[in-house]
Amino acid sequence: MTLKLVIIGGGSSYTPEIIEGIIRRHDSFPVTDIVLVDIEAGQKKLEIIGDLSLRMIEKSAKPIKLSWTLDRKRALINADFVSTQIRVGGLEARSKDERIPLSHGFIGQETNGAGGIFKAFRTIPVLIELAEDIHTICPDAWMINFTNPAGIVTEALLKHSAHQKVIGVCNIPFNMRHSTAEILGVSPDNVKIQFIGMNHFVFGQKVFVNGVDRTEEVLEKLVGDHFDYSPANIVNLGWSKTFIESTRLLPNPYHQYYFQTKEVLEKDLQAYKENGTRAEVVQQLEESLFELYRNPELRDKPKELEKRGGAFYSDVACSLMDSIYNNKEDVQTVNTFNNGAIPDLPNDAVIEANCIITNHGPRPISVGPLPATIKGLVYQMKAFEELVIQASISGDYNDAYTALLMNPLIGDEKRSKVLLDELLEAHKAYLPQFNSRGN
Amino acid sequence: MTLKLVIIGGGSSYTPEIIEGIIRRHDSFPVTDIVLVDIEAGQKKLEIIGDLSLRMIEKSAKPIKLSWTLDRKRALINADFVSTQIRVGGLEARSKDERIPLSHGFIGQETNGAGGIFKAFRTIPVLIELAEDIHTICPDAWMINFTNPAGIVTEALLKHSAHQKVIGVCNIPFNMRHSTAEILGVSPDNVKIQFIGMNHFVFGQKVFVNGVDRTEEVLEKLVGDHFDYSPANIVNLGWSKTFIESTRLLPNPYHQYYFQTKEVLEKDLQAYKENGTRAEVVQQLEESLFELYRNPELRDKPKELEKRGGAFYSDVACSLMDSIYNNKEDVQTVNTFNNGAIPDLPNDAVIEANCIITNHGPRPISVGPLPATIKGLVYQMKAFEELVIQASISGDYNDAYTALLMNPLIGDEKRSKVLLDELLEAHKAYLPQFNSRGN
Amino acid sequence: MTLKLVIIGGGSSYTPEIIEGIIRRHDSFPVTDIVLVDIEAGQKKLEIIGDLSLRMIEKSAKPIKLSWTLDRKRALINADFVSTQIRVGGLEARSKDERIPLSHGFIGQETNGAGGIFKAFRTIPVLIELAEDIHTICPDAWMINFTNPAGIVTEALLKHSAHQKVIGVCNIPFNMRHSTAEILGVSPDNVKIQFIGMNHFVFGQKVFVNGVDRTEEVLEKLVGDHFDYSPANIVNLGWSKTFIESTRLLPNPYHQYYFQTKEVLEKDLQAYKENGTRAEVVQQLEESLFELYRNPELRDKPKELEKRGGAFYSDVACSLMDSIYNNKEDVQTVNTFNNGAIPDLPNDAVIEANCIITNHGPRPISVGPLPATIKGLVYQMKAFEELVIQASISGDYNDAYTALLMNPLIGDEKRSKVLLDELLEAHKAYLPQFNSRGN
Amino acid sequence: MTLKLVIIGGGSSYTPEIIEGIIRRHDSFPVTDIVLVDIEAGQKKLEIIGDLSLRMIEKSAKPIKLSWTLDRKRALINADFVSTQIRVGGLEARSKDERIPLSHGFIGQETNGAGGIFKAFRTIPVLIELAEDIHTICPDAWMINFTNPAGIVTEALLKHSAHQKVIGVCNIPFNMRHSTAEILGVSPDNVKIQFIGMNHFVFGQKVFVNGVDRTEEVLEKLVGDHFDYSPANIVNLGWSKTFIESTRLLPNPYHQYYFQTKEVLEKDLQAYKENGTRAEVVQQLEESLFELYRNPELRDKPKELEKRGGAFYSDVACSLMDSIYNNKEDVQTVNTFNNGAIPDLPNDAVIEANCIITNHGPRPISVGPLPATIKGLVYQMKAFEELVIQASISGDYNDAYTALLMNPLIGDEKRSKVLLDELLEAHKAYLPQFNSRGN
Repeated sequence: MTLKLVIIGGGSSYTPEIIEGIIRRHDSFPVTDIVLVDIEAGQKKLEIIGDLSLRMIEKSAKPIKLSWTLDRKRALINADFVSTQIRVGGLEARSKDERIPLSHGFIGQETNGAGGIFKAFRTIPVLIELAEDIHTICPDAWMINFTNPAGIVTEALLKHSAHQKVIGVCNIPFNMRHSTAEILGVSPDNVKIQFIGMNHFVFGQKVFVNGVDRTEEVLEKLVGDHFDYSPANIVNLGWSKTFIESTRLLPNPYHQYYFQTKEVLEKDLQAYKENGTRAEVVQQLEESLFELYRNPELRDKPKELEKRGGAFYSDVACSLMDSIYNNKEDVQTVNTFNNGAIPDLPNDAVIEANCIITNHGPRPISVGPLPATIKGLVYQMKAFEELVIQASISGDYNDAYTALLMNPLIGDEKRSKVLLDELLEAHKAYLPQFNSRGN
Repeated sequence: MTLKLVIIGGGSSYTPEIIEGIIRRHDSFPVTDIVLVDIEAGQKKLEIIGDLSLRMIEKSAKPIKLSWTLDRKRALINADFVSTQIRVGGLEARSKDERIPLSHGFIGQETNGAGGIFKAFRTIPVLIELAEDIHTICPDAWMINFTNPAGIVTEALLKHSAHQKVIGVCNIPFNMRHSTAEILGVSPDNVKIQFIGMNHFVFGQKVFVNGVDRTEEVLEKLVGDHFDYSPANIVNLGWSKTFIESTRLLPNPYHQYYFQTKEVLEKDLQAYKENGTRAEVVQQLEESLFELYRNPELRDKPKELEKRGGAFYSDVACSLMDSIYNNKEDVQTVNTFNNGAIPDLPNDAVIEANCIITNHGPRPISVGPLPATIKGLVYQMKAFEELVIQASISGDYNDAYTALLMNPLIGDEKRSKVLLDELLEAHKAYLPQFNSRGN
Repeated sequence: MTLKLVIIGGGSSYTPEIIEGIIRRHDSFPVTDIVLVDIEAGQKKLEIIGDLSLRMIEKSAKPIKLSWTLDRKRALINADFVSTQIRVGGLEARSKDERIPLSHGFIGQETNGAGGIFKAFRTIPVLIELAEDIHTICPDAWMINFTNPAGIVTEALLKHSAHQKVIGVCNIPFNMRHSTAEILGVSPDNVKIQFIGMNHFVFGQKVFVNGVDRTEEVLEKLVGDHFDYSPANIVNLGWSKTFIESTRLLPNPYHQYYFQTKEVLEKDLQAYKENGTRAEVVQQLEESLFELYRNPELRDKPKELEKRGGAFYSDVACSLMDSIYNNKEDVQTVNTFNNGAIPDLPNDAVIEANCIITNHGPRPISVGPLPATIKGLVYQMKAFEELVIQASISGDYNDAYTALLMNPLIGDEKRSKVLLDELLEAHKAYLPQFNSRGN
Repeated sequence: MTLKLVIIGGGSSYTPEIIEGIIRRHDSFPVTDIVLVDIEAGQKKLEIIGDLSLRMIEKSAKPIKLSWTLDRKRALINADFVSTQIRVGGLEARSKDERIPLSHGFIGQETNGAGGIFKAFRTIPVLIELAEDIHTICPDAWMINFTNPAGIVTEALLKHSAHQKVIGVCNIPFNMRHSTAEILGVSPDNVKIQFIGMNHFVFGQKVFVNGVDRTEEVLEKLVGDHFDYSPANIVNLGWSKTFIESTRLLPNPYHQYYFQTKEVLEKDLQAYKENGTRAEVVQQLEESLFELYRNPELRDKPKELEKRGGAFYSDVACSLMDSIYNNKEDVQTVNTFNNGAIPDLPNDAVIEANCIITNHGPRPISVGPLPATIKGLVYQMKAFEELVIQASISGDYNDAYTALLMNPLIGDEKRSKVLLDELLEAHKAYLPQFNSRGN
């Protein structure tokens, strides 16, 4: 009996975390084979990661075979789980997603606003192709997608590929739970958050500690900048008392883009002047990480990795695969079809929800109607996501334009076009669907 | 620290089952106080049950104080759980619910058709009054309703009383799971059924054994009368191959009233001729049970109790209370607000669904849209239930008439009136809401 | 400029009515060409009708060219309107639709119950083929469908053919308006009924005479058998006071099948014993009509035609074509996509609704939510209709079975199969979609 | 027989237009009595308008009695129509609605953004009180509301007052139809626009001229600033080719606030610097209008009135009253309950829709689902409107805050509070519901 995991984008600097997760859970989730897959441009990194992973496994003394390859189709044979952590166009593309919007006075960000839209445009066709391969080669395998914008990408996959065993994960719900535990001085294992919304736009509605509702306490502590609640890549600006008291919801760190747009923009422009884009900061971080990884003495995931925004992503994924494999029926927060859990949103909208995890997939636990305060904006964000997916598939200029126009961070009829044209040109090499239509 | 359970209708012959359940679970669910409550007419039975319960507890050596009383309000003080198993009008009323429809050529039954409607009419006002008492006296207590028609009663309580900590339970999902386990020759603990629908109209959509989908196997075995799948009070007539192959669903035993109406009616009329109504059979069963209960040597729930149709009801309830108390987050099948779990039905419809059980209540797991084959009928049954609740509250003659008219087992404009008039007259003493309107 | 009408099923005994309607409206709706189309089996009738029509036009002195043909595709060239009044399998098939259900104790009827289901099965594929021809040959033409079951057929056409210019018409709303006018002693032109529901299951919600709400008055008069409200082919059994007072709705004549099932069945069985099926009665009526039509002196629609149940159908259709042609924006009751007019039903359900008639199609006037009393049954009927359409297209045995099973007039798991098998066999020659699947 | 119209806010400079409309339509809509009502602060203007109106009527020689009063309740006796054109706080309040947001860098406007929200806060309680008076004193009267924000105010009235005969009107659909006619060089009477959305956020979906779809032609002409399409109070900035080609919709003039926010803001700030707020411009306009009105020789509505943004408002209202009175069943564009016409929006949302106008009220013609491009934003605007209504009624600080926060023109968690506090203080005298709560 084999239990095989294929890691697409295996040359990512995050991979040691997932290897560590697999080793740690080996008793309950006894992976026998891991194959790291990457594209030619990433071959060198792939080898470094492969070597480090081998050393980590060796140290662990777990019976796991690990190899790496550029031959994706071959790697997929007999796979049970396929995780995806790719970045089409690399950090250079991310840099453009950040820089170009900023240069026009808009939030420049890799998962939200114009940058996030273009990351979706570049990523969706590539992952749909992967999903089709999985469906042909290893149709029983679960595809665990961490690639951002994770919610949009997961909805695109579930709607436009035949492979339906796809689950999206993000570290934000994990981070919110851990931060909340820290706020309350309790163990994260005892904390449950009732989430409502979708990836990067999810709110916490209730916080339970061992079943006791402690939401009010958490909300009080969130006021002002008393508590930093955000992952490494997002500087928290603090939430006002009025915002918290009026919504009675825990915002997620990305909400600052929408509710503190002006301040974030100023801060980001300042940071850009000082350090360049986040992509460039990450570029340096990556380089020093790979410097570390290269060290033949290193046989563990280095602490430095946690400085990346995506820390714990892989932990979330390992925990999910463990529950699927063991049909645990425990509750985890993942991205899957709504199916009525939030009755205001379409059944086939992907939401980020607490789900029962079984070996036949996640099933969201009923959330109930959106609170009146946020229902309009959440619905709009979902409608916007549909436009992004539509344009990613159609490659139609007008579809792409309406996606930008209807994003609350853009929404300007003339500047939407300016941004669109400049980003289409900048990312040309990675947007064949648009080029082929001769726009 | 006390943990107090109040059993409304404590003089019921089922009570020994609940006492046994409490004793058995005492390690995880350490009840300290039980109060049995009944009405004056039931005082004698109450005493017999009280005495037997004391003997059972004594034998168990668990530190549980048990008492009985006719003073409901006093009993509720400091209650943590209140279970309800009442029968307004007693078995005599049930006998009328069965006899009168039969005499006009309609299904005579205590939970479905005209009989079920009148049981709802008699029960709902009484239980709303109880719920209001709970809300005033012990607002944190969970009300666990087993009183039939359990789904309709639970919806009425959740919609028309201030007390929102109300959960409805039925033994049908439990029985279906156990019967299915028997069919497959596996332990019931390893069987999960994905349910869809509402109380007494619930279907099984999927059967998983340790996460493996074995639905097809179960469906095959359900064909014909090869397997008896029904509780003690319902004689199974078998399901045709075509029915099973066309719906791909596990019917519940009550579905025979709707899909095998003519045969059931013939069988029931025959049975009535031979043995009188089920109420009368039960009357005798009850008498012999109480004969047994009276025996001062008896210190256990007697086997004979399992012949009653409601067997395991109390087991279901004890298991539910245990999970609430311990905030277990396990999955149980209960009656609660839909909240989108079945997107075709209103959010505030009570459905019978697999729920995560927490100490702050059950949350249904998303079921998804109703299959095209059954969606019309399920929706109609729910709309009918709303009419029953409406009439139970309003006491309006026309409301009651439309409830009968829109029941698929009645649906005849002239005979609906005949049934209505005869049943209103027969149950007059227990329908003050109708009388006061001078109908 | 030509204005061409093609009448599919032109050999029907109803055709003189439509010819008369065209002549009468010639000033506002100046038809220049009429082609009557029929199949080979109907050639003789086609000629008789053709000759009579020519005599009628000649008498009118209107400049209308009329011809007849068996070549449907050729006839469609340059058509502006195509009306359809066909009967696949002829009156012989109708006789089976009536006789076979009756023989098993079910309503035997050509538009409701098992008979109606099979009429849909026979008709839908034929009319979809016609719609595809129209879409290819005369894509701007409006298809006006009178073929029963008109609502189901229209929904099937709108959902399963590319041609979207399809409108369904029925004489029931027309008859209800006229009967109501008679009840009130006013001119039908001044009466408006607010309809809710769908074809053959439509209710009147409000009656306005010159804008004055006189609903109560009409409801009062409907009680009992004081007033006969039905078309020629349906014997009215009268409505009970309680039914009318509880629903506050005007039933349509077909509602007696659902709410007076037992009485109708007895009456129909009695009539069957005395006169054979309605099909056989109609057969004789038809023969004597054609006897009249053959008379070369006849130059008008004979009075005797009004005895047929479908009287005024053609009048409804002519009035509709007139309003489309002239973009009148007047209100007529037709069958078209719901699009939210009744929010409880799907957007793509075909309903029978008051619509604004324009030259770009009918647009329903918002009706609002279904009353609580009927919403369950109306929804179920619509879900049942979807099953009929599904089976008509798929030719799948199980699909056909669930259609019968979920019809409120059948609903029996064993007898549904008996009826299905016997009707499938009886209508074999006209159900190629079922035969080809080897059921 | 009397036909009595009461004009609330009769001292408005717009009143001569409504008087002219009444005179012009007197043959079909024979008003016998007009009472102009205003508050004490408006007494002087009321007298001037009253005198002018009398001269207009005298010149017309129509048998209309006209009077004026400050006694609203007395005026309402026997009213058939009540029109409302009030401005709580007068132009001074409007000036604050414009100035305060502008001073913080937000759109300052009387019907949109923070200004529109506060106009709603001031107006809704006053008009609910009026509606209650109507319901008591003249329950059969139709209340025709022109008071802005007309859509929000109408929804508030229909949801929160017992009087349900309330219709909202706006001149935007009228202007769009007239401008479109001008673009196409045809008579406005032959132009129909299919509208979708709600007041001040309505789009044109299709343009028909005598039933011929000429939408494409109109869209082409809308590109750029070739055509000015806006009412007097809104300077048109022109729409980009991409915007028009991507949405395929006719925007309304107010859409520039949402899609051209930056440009409008710059233009408005510039205009403010040069001429003060629009309120101040209007103040001067009003003064010169009243100067004209005072002239005892003036016996007609002066041309100068058309320079006001609200021109034709009264014409729209007169035409509406005429159709109600005569039960015309013609199509007009008014604000009323959605009831499914746009299935994406709640049934009880007020939308701006083409309606059949009858003497028992308007009924929207089914519009169908919102196009994917705009559905998110339209839904959000409606959800925002619900928050405004909620806050207008509750007077709750947090409710008011979320209304500002969720407005797409504000949406900033810190500045929403700044705006809210400053506007609450500025409008204190007209916001008793907020003051009484001690915020």
